[in-house]
Amino acid sequence: MTAGRRADQPLSPTGRSTPRRERERAQSDRDTLYDVLDASLVCHLAVVVDGVPLALPTVFAVDLDGPDEGGTLYVHGSVASRSLVQAPGQDVSVTMTVLDGIVLARSGFNHSMNYRSAVVVGRPRLVTGEAERSHALDLLVDHVTPGRSATLRRPTRKELSATTVLALPLHEASVKRRVGDPSDEDVDVEAGGVWAGVLPLGLRAGEPVTGADVDVAAVPEHVTARVAALNRRSP
Amino acid sequence: MTAGRRADQPLSPTGRSTPRRERERAQSDRDTLYDVLDASLVCHLAVVVDGVPLALPTVFAVDLDGPDEGGTLYVHGSVASRSLVQAPGQDVSVTMTVLDGIVLARSGFNHSMNYRSAVVVGRPRLVTGEAERSHALDLLVDHVTPGRSATLRRPTRKELSATTVLALPLHEASVKRRVGDPSDEDVDVEAGGVWAGVLPLGLRAGEPVTGADVDVAAVPEHVTARVAALNRRSP
Repeated sequence: MTAGRRADQPLSPTGRSTPRRERERAQSDRDTLYDVLDASLVCHLAVVVDGVPLALPTVFAVDLDGPDEGGTLYVHGSVASRSLVQAPGQDVSVTMTVLDGIVLARSGFNHSMNYRSAVVVGRPRLVTGEAERSHALDLLVDHVTPGRSATLRRPTRKELSATTVLALPLHEASVKRRVGDPSDEDVDVEAGGVWAGVLPLGLRAGEPVTGADVDVAAVPEHVTARVAALNRRSP
Repeated sequence: MTAGRRADQPLSPTGRSTPRRERERAQSDRDTLYDVLDASLVCHLAVVVDGVPLALPTVFAVDLDGPDEGGTLYVHGSVASRSLVQAPGQDVSVTMTVLDGIVLARSGFNHSMNYRSAVVVGRPRLVTGEAERSHALDLLVDHVTPGRSATLRRPTRKELSATTVLALPLHEASVKRRVGDPSDEDVDVEAGGVWAGVLPLGLRAGEPVTGADVDVAAVPEHVTARVAALNRRSP
């Protein structure tokens, strides 16, 4: 993902996505949003389904040159998915969360996580145009493994008709981040005697495992590059 | 976490949490639920806030000997948190997601993730009893770093009054899991020529970083044990 073409656009045009708590953790620039999107493999799509808010894990993709100002977020799934069927017509949210560390303070109260998270809020649009659907599906594959879609055959008509694609403008979002040491009470620092610090965390990729019935032995460069890129970020 | 005392209790007493799609991925035994809870550091609490379903990342804890049959799930946060304030009185859900791998198929359509996820649904209870609140806060610290809470001072009255604790019965839940190789179309397997396989993923912990102003140099055993436990599961 490259720098946003609208990095100057405010993230919270309305009050509902402006974090009210822990303001020191709220981020207001678009580049921080794009960084969290780039660092996340999956998101949680929150939709009210039959009266209950459900957050379902799913892959996503971002098109900074998409139809929406500030960029377009895509999610997809089976046409039978209740969440995707019920999402258009209601406000939904999409959350990305990257865990960077366990924060071990001197008191239970000040324990925390180092993390980066983004919540995008809006009313999703059902993507019906063939060109946009096809492009979005490529982006979804490439978000998880950059460069992969160009090595694959095109989707069949049957596959396309079995797939729902939703678009959400990257218009209204909140981004939060916590970094660094524990924040302890002065009285606990003065009392001393308790170890405190941070346990760094990160997703790590292992060696690619070739499928049992695959006739190509050599792991392609885009896959080894993915392993390397993930592990550069991992502790 | 130990084996559940009610491992025989059905997970989906009502229809709303019974997965309708991808039935081969749905799991119906409680031990699989407990495994996912045990493997997850954080959850996403989905609550309708001001009309919008929001999924917010937060730590959680499980008490299999808690007041609810099948166990009790606890989440906590600031008394100023909109999600926690608005959650009691409405149905909410709590999702745990563990990413185990990227599934690279021969077609874009069959790309997937290997994962384990659990969605717990129910109406949360505001925990008001002092003993249960105190126990839940210890469990929350210990879920992230087992053994930690016993090394810390007790919470102050001020800290307790600044904290909201919610309990959700582990009564209604759905658990899904995908493991193994890509599932490709026969025609794509026969055509050949495309590498396919799995990129294993897992959270990895780095070396503990002692806080700048900490007077205890030795990293305690419960912290090094946590690093080892996390990294045993990582690829």
